[in-house]
Amino acid sequence: MMKRGFQVAARLGHYRALLRAPCIPPRLDSASAFASSSDDRISRFCPEKTDLKDYALPNASWSPDMLSMYQELLEKTKTDGWIKLPSFKSNRDHIQGLKLPWGLSVKTDYKDSCIFTRSIQMEGQGYEYVIFFHPSMKKSICLFQPGPYLEGPPGFAHGGSLAALMDETFSKTAYLAEEGLFTVSLNIRFKNLIPVNSLAVLNVDIEKIEDQKIYMSCTVQSRDQQTVYAKCSGVFLQMQLEKE
Amino acid sequence: MMKRGFQVAARLGHYRALLRAPCIPPRLDSASAFASSSDDRISRFCPEKTDLKDYALPNASWSPDMLSMYQELLEKTKTDGWIKLPSFKSNRDHIQGLKLPWGLSVKTDYKDSCIFTRSIQMEGQGYEYVIFFHPSMKKSICLFQPGPYLEGPPGFAHGGSLAALMDETFSKTAYLAEEGLFTVSLNIRFKNLIPVNSLAVLNVDIEKIEDQKIYMSCTVQSRDQQTVYAKCSGVFLQMQLEKE
Repeated sequence: MMKRGFQVAARLGHYRALLRAPCIPPRLDSASAFASSSDDRISRFCPEKTDLKDYALPNASWSPDMLSMYQELLEKTKTDGWIKLPSFKSNRDHIQGLKLPWGLSVKTDYKDSCIFTRSIQMEGQGYEYVIFFHPSMKKSICLFQPGPYLEGPPGFAHGGSLAALMDETFSKTAYLAEEGLFTVSLNIRFKNLIPVNSLAVLNVDIEKIEDQKIYMSCTVQSRDQQTVYAKCSGVFLQMQLEKE
Repeated sequence: MMKRGFQVAARLGHYRALLRAPCIPPRLDSASAFASSSDDRISRFCPEKTDLKDYALPNASWSPDMLSMYQELLEKTKTDGWIKLPSFKSNRDHIQGLKLPWGLSVKTDYKDSCIFTRSIQMEGQGYEYVIFFHPSMKKSICLFQPGPYLEGPPGFAHGGSLAALMDETFSKTAYLAEEGLFTVSLNIRFKNLIPVNSLAVLNVDIEKIEDQKIYMSCTVQSRDQQTVYAKCSGVFLQMQLEKE
């Protein structure tokens, strides 16, 4: 384990250097860099046929509120250009055939790994969420129902569980819309606690792109928009994946 | 579930109002408010005798790096005033006999609830961490070994898993040192990815207290301090719990 850490330490220097860079970070121009359009990325991310389990589908734990808003948004996928994103066990499943740039690879056992926000697999106990993405509007809506295993203050979701899901929703939006790969910064202001098992709605927008950095905003509120739970801004680094 | 959400919505208005307040938020002065010293809180938080499982003890998944740094810090608890904090299944266990202020209570089943950062209970797969706290220096050190269920980019910890642990370490430090109860804001800058199964060390300091807000900083780095993984500032609201 320690050895693996040291092996990647030097490579991580590239990432650190880019994050520090006051000017435009260089685009990868090696033969292995994989330049893709938003459509390419969406096709790869949302395969029409797959045996992979999609964790972003309704189950018995979803509240009536969550279910009805899901159905509303699902209707919009038929007419308004919204896409319901599938959610597989690992990010590896979403970028099959591609890998991180700069030799940023760590040999881990796929079988044992799991994306953090899907790691509690008992229905209703951990994260229940689904992301809808709109390619041309460059925005996402995430429906979030925190289960009792996401607790912080007794009876309420841990602020960190919301922070993680904001990062995750930013991440998927940034990647699909603009090749955003790495979180540079998150700036979160918490306004109200989210009761366990209630519905919170995350609205994510891409605000601008400058120097290969994607600037995004997120507002988290109740379905009726009467309670704001949190606001967040996030910056992501725009980089190309490489062919595996 | 929806009903419960609406029941607390009005009460949450108090929290929102305090977070918005540009001036000093009022201290609770009701008979139920529980003013305590840092020593009181530490005694309650770290009971000498308890049947509760402490999740912050070494297990077979801990790397040699994590184990040896744990032993080093444990030695300092004997001579240098450091305290190794226990970590129970729920925050309810740490504040027995007390409850959140402003009627912020939601009836949830204790049996089914779990603090977010202890929700993956298979050793080594999720969060492995332990917090050491120094009351007079008002600082904490958290040893963090992310397991493969905390994955974001393939082979690396999800930024959100680190964000959640920074919030958690801030939270425990703010509560024990200065009656900090709620996260107001987190401002995180990510510098490098943390490889899964490696050791990251969080150093948390209380910087200042103004208008009942506790300002804290956190640096996350490798044990040899050669790699900075992230830096974070956090603000917590200083409030008293109430007697149950």
